[in-house]
Amino acid sequence: MPSDNARGYAKGRARRREILLAALRAFAEQGFRATSMREIAEMVGLSQAGLLHHFSSKEELLEEVLRLRDEEQTAFNERLGEGRGLDAIRYLLDLVDLNARQVGLVRLYTVLAGESVSPGHPARQYFLDRYATVRERVAQRLRSARDEGELRADADLDGASAVIMAVMDGLQIQWLLDPETVDMPQVFREFLETYLRGLAPDDR
Amino acid sequence: MPSDNARGYAKGRARRREILLAALRAFAEQGFRATSMREIAEMVGLSQAGLLHHFSSKEELLEEVLRLRDEEQTAFNERLGEGRGLDAIRYLLDLVDLNARQVGLVRLYTVLAGESVSPGHPARQYFLDRYATVRERVAQRLRSARDEGELRADADLDGASAVIMAVMDGLQIQWLLDPETVDMPQVFREFLETYLRGLAPDDR
Repeated sequence: MPSDNARGYAKGRARRREILLAALRAFAEQGFRATSMREIAEMVGLSQAGLLHHFSSKEELLEEVLRLRDEEQTAFNERLGEGRGLDAIRYLLDLVDLNARQVGLVRLYTVLAGESVSPGHPARQYFLDRYATVRERVAQRLRSARDEGELRADADLDGASAVIMAVMDGLQIQWLLDPETVDMPQVFREFLETYLRGLAPDDR
Repeated sequence: MPSDNARGYAKGRARRREILLAALRAFAEQGFRATSMREIAEMVGLSQAGLLHHFSSKEELLEEVLRLRDEEQTAFNERLGEGRGLDAIRYLLDLVDLNARQVGLVRLYTVLAGESVSPGHPARQYFLDRYATVRERVAQRLRSARDEGELRADADLDGASAVIMAVMDGLQIQWLLDPETVDMPQVFREFLETYLRGLAPDDR
């Protein structure tokens, strides 16, 4: 049987997760700045002091919410190593399909990324680092495809990587606003094929 | 000489504009939801009652701020009719160049567009309408280019229009976060050439 300690620990962990999910929902619905600790405490039936026992500040909650979001994508990041050349880029199609089934997480990401461009926002560094990391990861795949002769030798692949991320982010905004009109997975799929065709060497 | 009335009117207009510019700055820096009327009043040295004399609510201020932003782009919208076929699309290069010189307005747009995807946001309808309008405008130009044989007959041009807007929005986020790394006008220029090449008929 688990000891009292272990049971207390499990209970504390469950409580933390409940708080994190409430914070995630609140940040996704109103953004970080407009959400108060009082509101989050109310969502989980805690006093503000009770909430502070688990998380010392709204900034700490934000950090943990972003970490939680990253974990959800881990499975996809692990598949990044698979495939050669252009096949290694096409995992992004699966990622966009996944996103289309996770409207809450996509909304969180869109609201926070938009907020983060304002000076002094606590998620600014997170997004700065995240874009740099993912751009480099996608650019590496593009370079490997170029080395196999699938992309033209003189293409700006760092720029292309920024473009591919931009399409993902920008389509999320349009899809969240108007999912009936913008079929995000389908539009992204056609974009990727068209764009890679545009990047292909002339003789192919 | 202007009458007292005319002078009072001009003064009221100048005051309104001053308030609008303060609201624009506040919304761009912290978003709509996290900005209070009290803060905006303080920025222009008014009491809250004095501010309410000019604008009856934060929602009215938001509406006027968005209208002000749209006016700044009027000159560009008017040029939309110029050029035939693909040339009619390339005015977007000038628009992105202009945006790169208007960091405040671009930040406003990015923060508010991000916020607007959350349920019940007062700018939601504005962005919904705006995306629909601009997508259709760009799609029309693409269809005219297709009719002249510059784009493949079977391309999904509504989707392509959504993609072009997505790249503009997504690059703004990356550029606002990291202007040293992401040369927005240059990356957009290369994107547009590459993408249009990908959309071209096979025999060209």
